[in-house]
Amino acid sequence: MQRMIITRLVCRHSRRSFATHSNTSTTSILQIPMEEARTTTARALQQIGWNVKDAALQADIMIAAELCGNNQGLVKMYQPKQMAPAPGAGVPVVERETPSSAVINANKAPGMLAAVTAADLAVQKVHSGNSIAMVCAYNSCTSSGQLAYYVNRMAQTGCIGVALCNSPEFVAAAPGAKPVFGTNPLAIGIPRAGTVPYTFDMATSAIALFGVLSAQAKGEPLPPQVAYDAQGQFTTDAKQVMNGGAIATFGGHKGLGLSLCVELLAGALSGAAVLGQVESKKMAQSWGHTFIAINPHAFVDDFEEKSASILRTVQASGENVRIPGERSVKTAQERQAAGVLPIPQTIWDSICHTAQHGLETPSRE
Amino acid sequence: MQRMIITRLVCRHSRRSFATHSNTSTTSILQIPMEEARTTTARALQQIGWNVKDAALQADIMIAAELCGNNQGLVKMYQPKQMAPAPGAGVPVVERETPSSAVINANKAPGMLAAVTAADLAVQKVHSGNSIAMVCAYNSCTSSGQLAYYVNRMAQTGCIGVALCNSPEFVAAAPGAKPVFGTNPLAIGIPRAGTVPYTFDMATSAIALFGVLSAQAKGEPLPPQVAYDAQGQFTTDAKQVMNGGAIATFGGHKGLGLSLCVELLAGALSGAAVLGQVESKKMAQSWGHTFIAINPHAFVDDFEEKSASILRTVQASGENVRIPGERSVKTAQERQAAGVLPIPQTIWDSICHTAQHGLETPSRE
Repeated sequence: MQRMIITRLVCRHSRRSFATHSNTSTTSILQIPMEEARTTTARALQQIGWNVKDAALQADIMIAAELCGNNQGLVKMYQPKQMAPAPGAGVPVVERETPSSAVINANKAPGMLAAVTAADLAVQKVHSGNSIAMVCAYNSCTSSGQLAYYVNRMAQTGCIGVALCNSPEFVAAAPGAKPVFGTNPLAIGIPRAGTVPYTFDMATSAIALFGVLSAQAKGEPLPPQVAYDAQGQFTTDAKQVMNGGAIATFGGHKGLGLSLCVELLAGALSGAAVLGQVESKKMAQSWGHTFIAINPHAFVDDFEEKSASILRTVQASGENVRIPGERSVKTAQERQAAGVLPIPQTIWDSICHTAQHGLETPSRE
Repeated sequence: MQRMIITRLVCRHSRRSFATHSNTSTTSILQIPMEEARTTTARALQQIGWNVKDAALQADIMIAAELCGNNQGLVKMYQPKQMAPAPGAGVPVVERETPSSAVINANKAPGMLAAVTAADLAVQKVHSGNSIAMVCAYNSCTSSGQLAYYVNRMAQTGCIGVALCNSPEFVAAAPGAKPVFGTNPLAIGIPRAGTVPYTFDMATSAIALFGVLSAQAKGEPLPPQVAYDAQGQFTTDAKQVMNGGAIATFGGHKGLGLSLCVELLAGALSGAAVLGQVESKKMAQSWGHTFIAINPHAFVDDFEEKSASILRTVQASGENVRIPGERSVKTAQERQAAGVLPIPQTIWDSICHTAQHGLETPSRE
């Protein structure tokens, strides 16, 4: 009961929020008006130390993930301390620059701020007249969240956007091998005529780290053959994975090659921590991001018509065709139209408490 | 016997060639001195209509594939007519150009010539001072062969090389769907300290078209779940696949997304034939290639040391680790040291006959 009172104190529209939630257990899903979710999250981020601009940006990125049903959104606010500015952290600063490239030292700023700074700079370089530009960021120490956000943001300006990120050692290159890769995602955003950009976003691991943590929290089994225990055997027990095991790469040797290439292009090339040159990437806390922006009109006329034609034709090629990313578009459109976001009560409680009390621990009697 | 006589007539070093072949059946493997293989292949290409430079280049690309054990090499010369210049074909010409980009109209030149022209131009733009450059080619109507050749060629100049290619409808997006994609390969070449570049080269389909054709020719079954019959059911019968069936994409929905992105970035962006805008890509005969060259030193110092460290650390992370592409490097080093290439007799016979007689049909009595 205490949590609900806290929430009521903080949230202006709490009546609507609670009028529509589906049940009263701690795992119930609330229907929160979108703008309320955004402003409350931004206020919570300000309370834990962010300035108005950076708080709003991080709230936007998390809300965008919620909008399309991605699980890397407001869950980050469940433990708000982890979202607070790191001690001694600075702001992202451009360290190297040419007309078609740049490198950003994130100075331990969060992955989200580093990534959006790099993505926007790549786009800016293309809009300044380059057909293609590439911007890397390094020295951030948290996940950038859903990569689709950045490539969609790039594609909405008319650019093709490509994003690659590396992260610490969670993923092994073979059964029984030590973890070496992060979940090393890649994403591509493609402008198309008549509708929102097409975005494709995937981890090169067989399952996202969040998927393992989520299965562990819920006590549910993992899908088969996505992760190893400490002995290098496939296991469906998430606890075994987190206790000295590792996640597998996806798709056999091809997935391994892609994971390695992301490590090389987002890790080594950005200036982030390099396997074999540091004791551990986890300790070094320097994650890497690489963004490429491309002006399609430098290459072909009517690119947006062509991309739309390809996507329509693939979709119509069979009734079982499910184009990755397109379900997210539909979900986002539905949620945008409804104007509300479904948010687990425990997470919303945490956001509302943080928006009022910052990192002060709620009383739990 | 007739074939062996033909071969003896054409090949200067035929004695050595035949002294080392393993048996006398038509499928025996000959050990051909590398330079003899290269010059004879180039001579055969001149005989069927290529000038000295283009013949040498195409021979080099095929020999490079043989050197590392890739199956997209001299097999192309088994049916030399298919390697002859297409009626009315021209040469690749740059149609659009900026300092960091270009588009090449291949004018129906073979994929190999279009691809090498595009790859070399991307590298040239980087060596002229751009941190990143992208060059597309379209309007070629044959396969570029092994993409690793081009990205290795780019990486040997110090650039990171990325290659993407699309091709006609062989691959379906779901069971029972119409084929829409080509095998849509991608490749990445990475300079590294102390040894040859690292190259990774993969089809986004579950099996290469050559793999299906080869299984059909040998009467061998396909691996499970790589291809569909005309009814959209998985089949291991290559004949069923070629008779109205389709190849599958690799790696579940992620492989489908990657195949689609290659179609968008190498097909639509290059100006090649677009699904839904042509009756069929097979008929339109305009395949697309996209090459990106990157100067790693614009982004980070000592990139080659970093990439070598990552590759060494991944290799050492477990005894079962098999890094894709590294076996090819070892094979190439062994064959280079031995100075000979293992070539099936039927293929070598065809090359030698073509080198002497062009497309004249050999007598088969």
